[in-house]
Amino acid sequence: MTLGSDVVSEDRRIAVVAGGVGAAKFLRGLLQVHSNHLVTALVNVADDFRLHGLAISPDLDTVTYTLGGLVNPETGWGRAKESWTVRDELERLGGETWFNLGDLDLAVHLYRTQRLGDGATLTEVTKEICDKLGIEAQLLPASNQEIRTQLKLEGGGWVDFQDYFVAQQHSVAVENLRFQGIEEALPGPSVISSLEEADAIVIAPSNPFVSVNPVLEIAGVGDVIKRRRENVVAISPIVGGAALKGPASRMLEELGFERSVVGIASLYEEFASALVIDHEDVELAAKVEAAGLRSVVTDTIMSDQGRAAALAKAVLENT
Amino acid sequence: MTLGSDVVSEDRRIAVVAGGVGAAKFLRGLLQVHSNHLVTALVNVADDFRLHGLAISPDLDTVTYTLGGLVNPETGWGRAKESWTVRDELERLGGETWFNLGDLDLAVHLYRTQRLGDGATLTEVTKEICDKLGIEAQLLPASNQEIRTQLKLEGGGWVDFQDYFVAQQHSVAVENLRFQGIEEALPGPSVISSLEEADAIVIAPSNPFVSVNPVLEIAGVGDVIKRRRENVVAISPIVGGAALKGPASRMLEELGFERSVVGIASLYEEFASALVIDHEDVELAAKVEAAGLRSVVTDTIMSDQGRAAALAKAVLENT
Repeated sequence: MTLGSDVVSEDRRIAVVAGGVGAAKFLRGLLQVHSNHLVTALVNVADDFRLHGLAISPDLDTVTYTLGGLVNPETGWGRAKESWTVRDELERLGGETWFNLGDLDLAVHLYRTQRLGDGATLTEVTKEICDKLGIEAQLLPASNQEIRTQLKLEGGGWVDFQDYFVAQQHSVAVENLRFQGIEEALPGPSVISSLEEADAIVIAPSNPFVSVNPVLEIAGVGDVIKRRRENVVAISPIVGGAALKGPASRMLEELGFERSVVGIASLYEEFASALVIDHEDVELAAKVEAAGLRSVVTDTIMSDQGRAAALAKAVLENT
Repeated sequence: MTLGSDVVSEDRRIAVVAGGVGAAKFLRGLLQVHSNHLVTALVNVADDFRLHGLAISPDLDTVTYTLGGLVNPETGWGRAKESWTVRDELERLGGETWFNLGDLDLAVHLYRTQRLGDGATLTEVTKEICDKLGIEAQLLPASNQEIRTQLKLEGGGWVDFQDYFVAQQHSVAVENLRFQGIEEALPGPSVISSLEEADAIVIAPSNPFVSVNPVLEIAGVGDVIKRRRENVVAISPIVGGAALKGPASRMLEELGFERSVVGIASLYEEFASALVIDHEDVELAAKVEAAGLRSVVTDTIMSDQGRAAALAKAVLENT
């Protein structure tokens, strides 16, 4: 293979700003087409919370389960072949079961909580779990400090992210967002250096408001990404005006942005120089370009691993 | 039925100072022969600890599982029909599995931890669990404050109780004991009043050092029991010089007491006016009496529920 300007170099370091399901699928595709040890994911921790005293990191778990081959293929999160003995018994006791903790999933939370209690950092615990699961890519929690997404719901007060997302199934309009603790939070170890040293930075097709933004707003992270803007490509989580999963498209409208890839472009304009959009949105490419981002039109719907790999390849070719 | 001095009155309030397995078996027997709502157990909490962030109360759980009909009949603790999905997965992750948390057992710890995190007291959580399990007797944690048994092992330093009892399987000689936090701990709600109002107080056949003593040493508890000495009967956990379960007989010797019911008598002499001993120890009855306690000789080995009920009946007849 001859390296040239139109050929993807295989030894490039790639940093990916990641949320949950969409990011996990993209990363799994990327690891099929790129050297795994050159991939670093900077994973959102603002959805993390404590339940039953356990430290739960939904986005880190979704990414590790997906890359470790353990994820439930039907949902894209949680464990395959999960069992529910603990949850059913908890329900019988009148306990809180809205988060639906499966038995296999629980083991990971027990492990993480124990290790954090021992004094390990989330970065260290995540590496331990990745090592056990044979994941060669580097997964870095965006921060080891506590950041907590809260949402102000229409006609109501501020609620925690999981209350909105899981308990209320994101069915209520969002008026505002905040990330408790983010002003004091530091980037996790290697987060800044992996962004500085990356040959390309990818913003995964995750919710910009609740997955990507609480990574970008951590001290220094957004700044280095802005500085690297020419090497940053974002993948739109919106196709044809709708999010493939979750409330991203509704939030665009609720928070005053255009409910389309153009809204995504306006959100990422400072951070990325290119936006990957789906063929379905090809007629909006000019508006994306007008918003200041180069548009890359390809298939972005990762309905299987082959398509995810093809998307990753297209992204690499355009960075 | 005619009430008389030689007949057990059925409306007497009975308070039982309780540890784990032995106490649970005795209580189950007692509930077969006495009005359940008149029975209060004051349960040791000094074995309680946190593991994986979860609040675990081994003695309370053993008693609730036994009285709720959920206990593993082979061990006398833990759950019947238990499954181990979480533990096996935790082991695969390299997590700590020495305490062997079963799936059904875990649900109770999740429930308790969540409720304590919500601000409920251990007394309240215990009542909620008892209500769910249909337990009519009142189970009271000896304290809602943290008390932690620690043991100084021969040739070593101080270790936590579960380290000694479970991880090291109580196979190392004990040189000394202490109960961290007991000086600041207050008796739980209704603990003192249930002792004051009881018509009879029973010290269950539990380990005097690590189960009974950390109840007696809580401020006010030992004092009220001493004041009620004439109405207090203790049941020896030692038969023929050996404990039926656990390290009680070894501890007697290691801590300088006679390894027999006579050692038990000397430990309880201030608190109880009678000691129930097994027929096997009938030749030591005189020495028990010499130590200042009336001896009650009966079958104390609760090898089945019928024998436990018979022991409870004998105890009631002698208070």
